[in-house]
This record gives sequence, C-alpha cells and structure tokens, in this order.
Amino acid sequence: MSARFKQRLRCLFSPRSVAIIGASNSPEKWGNRILFNLTRGGYPGRIFPVNPREKEVLGLEAAPSILEIHPDIDLAVITIPPAGVVGAVRDCAARGVGCTIVITSGFSETGEAGRKLEEEIRELAVRADMPLVGPNCVGILSPPNSLYCHMMPVFPPPGNIAIIGQSGSVADMIASRIASRGMGISHSISVGNEAVLQVADYLDFLADDDQTSVILGYIEGLRNGHRFLEIAGRVTRKKPIILLKAGSTPAGARAGLSHTGALAGSDEIVDAALKQAGVLRARSLDDMVDAGLVFSRLPLPKGNRVGIIAPGGGWGVMAADACTAEGLDVAPLDDATLNRLNAVLPEVWSHGNPVDTIAGVKGSIGELLEIMAASPSLDGIIALGAVAGAPSLWRYLEGSRNKEEVTERYALGAMDFLGLSFKDVVRIRDSYGKPIVMAMFMPVYMGRIMDAMKRLAEQTQTATFMSPAQACAAYGYLWRYSSYLKTVNPIPRGGLR
Amino acid sequence: MSARFKQRLRCLFSPRSVAIIGASNSPEKWGNRILFNLTRGGYPGRIFPVNPREKEVLGLEAAPSILEIHPDIDLAVITIPPAGVVGAVRDCAARGVGCTIVITSGFSETGEAGRKLEEEIRELAVRADMPLVGPNCVGILSPPNSLYCHMMPVFPPPGNIAIIGQSGSVADMIASRIASRGMGISHSISVGNEAVLQVADYLDFLADDDQTSVILGYIEGLRNGHRFLEIAGRVTRKKPIILLKAGSTPAGARAGLSHTGALAGSDEIVDAALKQAGVLRARSLDDMVDAGLVFSRLPLPKGNRVGIIAPGGGWGVMAADACTAEGLDVAPLDDATLNRLNAVLPEVWSHGNPVDTIAGVKGSIGELLEIMAASPSLDGIIALGAVAGAPSLWRYLEGSRNKEEVTERYALGAMDFLGLSFKDVVRIRDSYGKPIVMAMFMPVYMGRIMDAMKRLAEQTQTATFMSPAQACAAYGYLWRYSSYLKTVNPIPRGGLR
Repeated sequence: MSARFKQRLRCLFSPRSVAIIGASNSPEKWGNRILFNLTRGGYPGRIFPVNPREKEVLGLEAAPSILEIHPDIDLAVITIPPAGVVGAVRDCAARGVGCTIVITSGFSETGEAGRKLEEEIRELAVRADMPLVGPNCVGILSPPNSLYCHMMPVFPPPGNIAIIGQSGSVADMIASRIASRGMGISHSISVGNEAVLQVADYLDFLADDDQTSVILGYIEGLRNGHRFLEIAGRVTRKKPIILLKAGSTPAGARAGLSHTGALAGSDEIVDAALKQAGVLRARSLDDMVDAGLVFSRLPLPKGNRVGIIAPGGGWGVMAADACTAEGLDVAPLDDATLNRLNAVLPEVWSHGNPVDTIAGVKGSIGELLEIMAASPSLDGIIALGAVAGAPSLWRYLEGSRNKEEVTERYALGAMDFLGLSFKDVVRIRDSYGKPIVMAMFMPVYMGRIMDAMKRLAEQTQTATFMSPAQACAAYGYLWRYSSYLKTVNPIPRGGLR
Repeated sequence: MSARFKQRLRCLFSPRSVAIIGASNSPEKWGNRILFNLTRGGYPGRIFPVNPREKEVLGLEAAPSILEIHPDIDLAVITIPPAGVVGAVRDCAARGVGCTIVITSGFSETGEAGRKLEEEIRELAVRADMPLVGPNCVGILSPPNSLYCHMMPVFPPPGNIAIIGQSGSVADMIASRIASRGMGISHSISVGNEAVLQVADYLDFLADDDQTSVILGYIEGLRNGHRFLEIAGRVTRKKPIILLKAGSTPAGARAGLSHTGALAGSDEIVDAALKQAGVLRARSLDDMVDAGLVFSRLPLPKGNRVGIIAPGGGWGVMAADACTAEGLDVAPLDDATLNRLNAVLPEVWSHGNPVDTIAGVKGSIGELLEIMAASPSLDGIIALGAVAGAPSLWRYLEGSRNKEEVTERYALGAMDFLGLSFKDVVRIRDSYGKPIVMAMFMPVYMGRIMDAMKRLAEQTQTATFMSPAQACAAYGYLWRYSSYLKTVNPIPRGGLR
C-alpha cells in the first residue's frame, strides 16, 4: 500500500464530497436508498447524484456523468448494474476521485465471468492508487462524521467501537446491537469481495484512528492470511480486535463460498493463528458485542484473580463455573478482607469467594464492593444481582393492593436502588482502577425498566449484563487481552510506574 | 413414597387453605413478605397468619398457634428462626396439615448442628406422611392456581412450563425470563435442602400434571442419583426435561457445597447419565428458556434435515455452522423444490440450502416458506431475518426528513410486515406439521418494537429469536428430544398413523 493510497483512505470515512453513480428517483433502486439514507443521516458535505437521464434526484441537481462534476470528489459510490461498473471505475480513476465504493453485486461471488470483471476493476483502481471498497457490499457508516452511506436505514450513534464485516447484513446487526446497548460506533465497513481493500487494510487504518478504541469483526474467510496476521499482530498491541469467525463447519464453509467466494481454512489452524496474533475470538454475535462493551468502558485487570459477589448461592455457583471456563481464578480471600466482610454481612454469609450475601445486601452495595475492590487478593470484581431482595425495596411496595401495583412499584424502587448502586460502582472502580462487571436480576420484567437500566449504564459507563454467565464471559475478554499484552509488552506503554 | 404422601403433594400446588407460621407485621421479616405476596397475588383460598404476639397480621386475624386453627390446613409455610422450626413441624404433623414448606435457612448448609436439626424435621415429616419442601427455600409459585407463596414479589402469568430450582433466586430468574418472552409457567418450585421432597419427587408429580408440558430445572448436585435417573427416564417419555447443571467446575462445586450442601459428581458421568435418561442439558439460562419456548409452541421434527432461509449470506453461514453443531443436516434440496424456488427468487439466489434470498424477500415470506415446508427433503425450517431489506418497507419511509423520522417509520413498517409474516408462518406450520423457527434482525432498535414483536409472537404462538445461533440452538433441542423419543418409543403414542 503506497503512502498516497493510505492517505486517500481517509476520504472513505470523512469525505468532503460524495458522488452517487446510479442515483435514482425510483425507491426500489439501491441508488435511491443510499442517497436517501445519506441525506437523512445529516451528511454535512456536498452530494452529487450522477444520472444521465434525470435533472434532479431526490431534490438534488444531478450530473449526467462523474466526468462533468467540477469540484473535487472525495468519495464515489457506484450502484449501477455490473456491466457498467468497469466504465464507472475508469471514470472515477480518470477524475481523480479520492475513494470508491462499489455496492453492485454479480462479480467473483457468481463465477468466472464475474471474476474477470472484478479483476478489471481491481487493476484500474490499483493503477490509479485509488482505494476501492467492495464490490458486493452494503456501504460505510461513520457516525462521528454523520456519514450514513449505506443500503439499509441504519443510524447508530457515534462511539468508539469499529465494525468490519464480511457480510453487510451481519455488520448491520452488530451495529444495531451496539446501539441497543447504549454504545456507539466509530466506523462500520462492509468489505464485500475485497477486490482492492482487504480486511487487513481496514485494520491498519483503524489502528491509528483516534475515534476507535476496539475493533469487532465478522469474518468468513481470510485472503492473504500471512499479511492479515502480520498486520493484526501489530494492531492488537494498540487496541483489542474481537472476531467472530463463521464458516467453521463444512456446511457453513459451503454457504460462505457461495456468499463471498472466500475460502475458509481449517478451524484449528485459524484458531491458533488468530491467538498468536492476539486476536480474540468471539463465540457468538452477542458475545462479541459484550466484549465491545467491556473494552469500551472498563480498565484491564492486572491479573486473573476475581472476586464474586452473589445475592444467593445459585448465582455464585454459576459465576464460579463460568469464571473457571474463562481461565479466571476465583481466588481465596485474605484474612483482612474476610474480617472486614464479617463486619458488614449477616452471620451466615458464605465466608469465602464467591461472597454469598444470602438475604440480599443491606442498603447500597457500596460498602461491600469497596471492601472487595480494596483487597490485595483480587484484580477485579464481578458483582451479581444486587437488586434481588434488597430490603430497602420493600417500603416502595407498601399500599399496593394487587400484583400489578406491586410489580409497578417494585420497578420504581429497583430503578432508585440501581441509580445509587451505579454511582457506588463508578466511584469505586475509579478509586481502585480495577474492572467491575455487573449482572442484574430483575424479578419483574418490564421493557421500561430495561430501557431505564440501559440509560443508567450508559450515563455511568458501567458494564451491566443480564446473567452471571454473560457477565463472566465479558470479563474473560478483559483478562485474555490483558494477559496477551503482558506477553508482548513486558514494559507497559508510558514506561514503568 | 406412599400413595397417601403422593396424593397430599397436590396440596402444595392447589391448597384450599394456607397458614403462615411466623406471619409478621414487620416488613423486614420474610413472614411478612410471603403473606404480602400471597394476598397481593390474588390467592382465592383461606389464609391463616400464625403469630402468638399479634391479633392481626396485614389485616387478617392471626392465630397464636397452628394447633388453634380449626378448619383443615392444606399448606403450612414456616418462616420462624431455626430453633423453633422443629416444634412447628411437629405441630403441623400433629394437626394433620397437608403439606409444609420450611423457608427458614440455617440447617444442613451451615454444618453439623444444622444437619442434626434438619434430620429431626425429616423424621417428623416422614413419620406423618407429610410432604415437606425445604428447608432453606424461597417458596412455591403456581400461577394457574393464583398461588404466589414466595419470598420475592414475582408474579409470572400462568402457562405450561414448570420450573424446579436448587436455587430459589435462579428459579425466580428463570420465571421472570419466561414471562418476559411472553410465556407462562405452571409451577415453580424452590427445592431448598431437599430434606424430604427431592427433585425426583417433583419430577414424578409434574409428569402427570396436565398443566405442565415441559420441565426446566436448575441443578447443582443430585441426591440419590439412581432414583433420580430412574424417575427422570420415565418422565422424559411423556414430556421433555431440560436441566442446567451448575457446579461443573471445581470452583463452582466448592461454591455449591456452601450453598445447599449437595455434592456434584464428575461432570462427564453426570452428562452421560442424564443423556441416558433422555434429559436434555442446557448450556445457559437463556438457552434453557429458549428450549422451553420451542417445546411449548412447536411440533417435533420427524428427522434432522433442516432448510434455512437467509436474507443475506452471513446469516446463512452462521446458521449452517450452528445447525451442524446441533447435529442437524442442512440437507440438499430436491430438484422440484429448486425449480419452485427459481420461480420466486431473484436470478442470483444461492441455488441451494441455505436459501440466500440476496436482496430481501419480495412481499411476504409466505410463498417462499410454503415451498420449503412442502419439500420432502426437509423436516423443518429455520427462517432468518425476513424483515431486513424487505422492499415493501421503503414506502413507509417516504417523506421522512431526518434519521429519527426514518427510524420511527421503519419500525412501523417492520411491525406491519411482521404481522403478515407471522400469519403466514402459523398457517404453513399448521398445514405441514413441521416446526418453523424464526430469527428477526431489526436494523433499528426500539424497546417498543421488541415489546410489540414479543406480543405478536405470543399471540400467534410462533418461536422467534434475535440471532441465527439462538434460533438454531433452540431448534436443536426439538431434534434431540425427537430422536430420543424414537429410541424409546418406536411406536408413537396413539398407535401408528
């Protein structure tokens, strides 16, 4: 990749102008949908629809060809049928367009004829030093730049998580889950057939991108595996990469071949190579989004010793199982910590780790959490279900005459309780610099509570999950990445402290 | 278990009268909380608070002792401190109470002294042929009988899923998840230390309970494993049992020991024994609830051949991987089915299973689904993400000026689309008697859509999940149970058809 090529890549995420080749007034055309989404997303730069048969598209003046637009074009998006794409890419190259996205499908994923067309496109772009996304992709989202240049009407808020997808609709699914968890994204890239720009190139760009602090990827197969691993290994020293690798079974690999034409390697070899490069592998989409959440909000633990707070035995058992599976040590507590806990817990507490508080925490969980966070035996805390059975909730229920009223008031009380708990968690996390992950059990279910809880977690930047297993799995990513960094960066950045 | 004992067990779930020994006016006592929840839950039978120092508790006339209540008592709930429990159980036995629940903790889970007290309770109950739940439990829920006799204010609606929990708070968590998914429960039992009634006894009861069609259990360790397996093996021929077995790692087992005192066996041995008895093992709480959902709503597949419909390649790849992991066969399609699909899909479709519809399904998914359901090559269908990119949605977006309006109108369109799709799904499922599981991808996230989607799924009794992996895992339970039934019931109930 030349320096000029690399520098032009920035046009992809923060273009000053966008041309849509194939912009259309007909709603069933993608050239209409993309222009619609781009304008409705609030893109602040200049937009040039290109259509030889229309004077105006969606109220914007149209040019008959990109060659007849005079101002500089940072980004051209091509949505016309396959036969015209080679000519359009040639025009973009001639016109000195910064970057090109080819949305159109019908290339190497469909067979030999398509493969040849794709090769022509590749040569034109490479010769012109012009970065090209696709073909066969859904577009780019860059919310910090109000750039929603994309087939589907997906508008996630800005944030620090980047997405790279070898499937556009899976990338969209990840973006929408991130948004639904109160987080935002820096950029989302649908890579398509990777004729020119490959996954490794995007990683390379994101490594130095200040808006991105964690990278999530959906991958079916890797092209040019050595280069990918070399670049990924450099990126992971700066920020975590979490990949969901699909196509790991024969049926999945067959499905992937007809999708992007990428060949999947043996799953064991892929696994070992990714591990070597410090790439964390996700077990599912939700798991990947959970990992994104903890990396975007929490400090890394310095070791694998974890303290578990549980409001009932079952929670502690499930969490201890899940922590063990993650390579975490549910470490014995030191005598000083045990004594401090004795002073604030009921006599029958578990007297060990997990700390089973038996009948619910008295008052706020702050006191208990602070004792655990201060313990020299623990590198981080998993605090489970503090809401369940908190005696301070009962006063909210007084006067309710039926189960509907009880449920309603319990929900109100739980929100107040959570508000206080979250404040404690933030204060203690910031004082001790240790990660604190939470799981909340709400004996009553209401969409309203869930929404309010998400808002609270978002405002306080805490990491809260709905089950012990999920909380422990998310924490596990923090530890795996922290232990990887220890092996590659024996001296922490910023020197020894 | 004597016939009389077994018959008295029915008092536990549909008692005509309940006495609360330790009923209190003080909100921080569990004897207050349980009485409060019982009354607010709308229990229709007679309630007798027992408290020697109060004339009235929560507005109900109190008796000084259970011996001084004259009408029959079907169910007595004991909430007084451990020292008084033996006396209270003796009184219940003397009084001829139908069934007893001991909520109080501080027995075998705390050491030798507690173990002796528990043994005294056990002997008294067994000698009187009186079923006893606990000690150290949170109570019983039986929504079809409006019985919410329980520590926490949890009021799930009635339904056909039963819960057995070796942790009360985990059982509550399961109940609340079931409710949040638009399903209901028949009974939820917190088994506590199992001094008298053990998990196997509840299974035995639920096998013949008409209100229950599927049983979910959270288990840390099994007492009397042989008897458990013998009974479970009989029950699974009638209805599915799905267990989450915790304490499978050393750290988890240690935590479990301090919780209920039950010893966990080697995980491999437990796994083999459960499999032999036809018990399905859940990988997580959510997984168990997903299994409950498909069993409560869908027919069993006759074989393992599954057809996948995907609105984009990535979905198909993930689903094919997940199906393979579940032992399902993403089977080749027969020529007649391929030809019928060619007629309704765009030219570039995947021409195989998974059926990748590329640019979204035109119109409703009914036509496509019907072709798949009719195929002799397939035993069931997994239909993924039909909402994403459905062209019929674009007309909803016309006139929106910004991304907030687009999102809002897209949501409205998606709900209309789903309403039509769900109707198709029900019609086709009922015509062909094959299970259809769906996963929906919503590029826009709104609590309101999720709630509406849940209501739709509930009304139509369809099985809809939020990711391909989740949909395939849930479908996997149907197939595992169906293939188990084939091995034990070579001739289907009702004779050969």
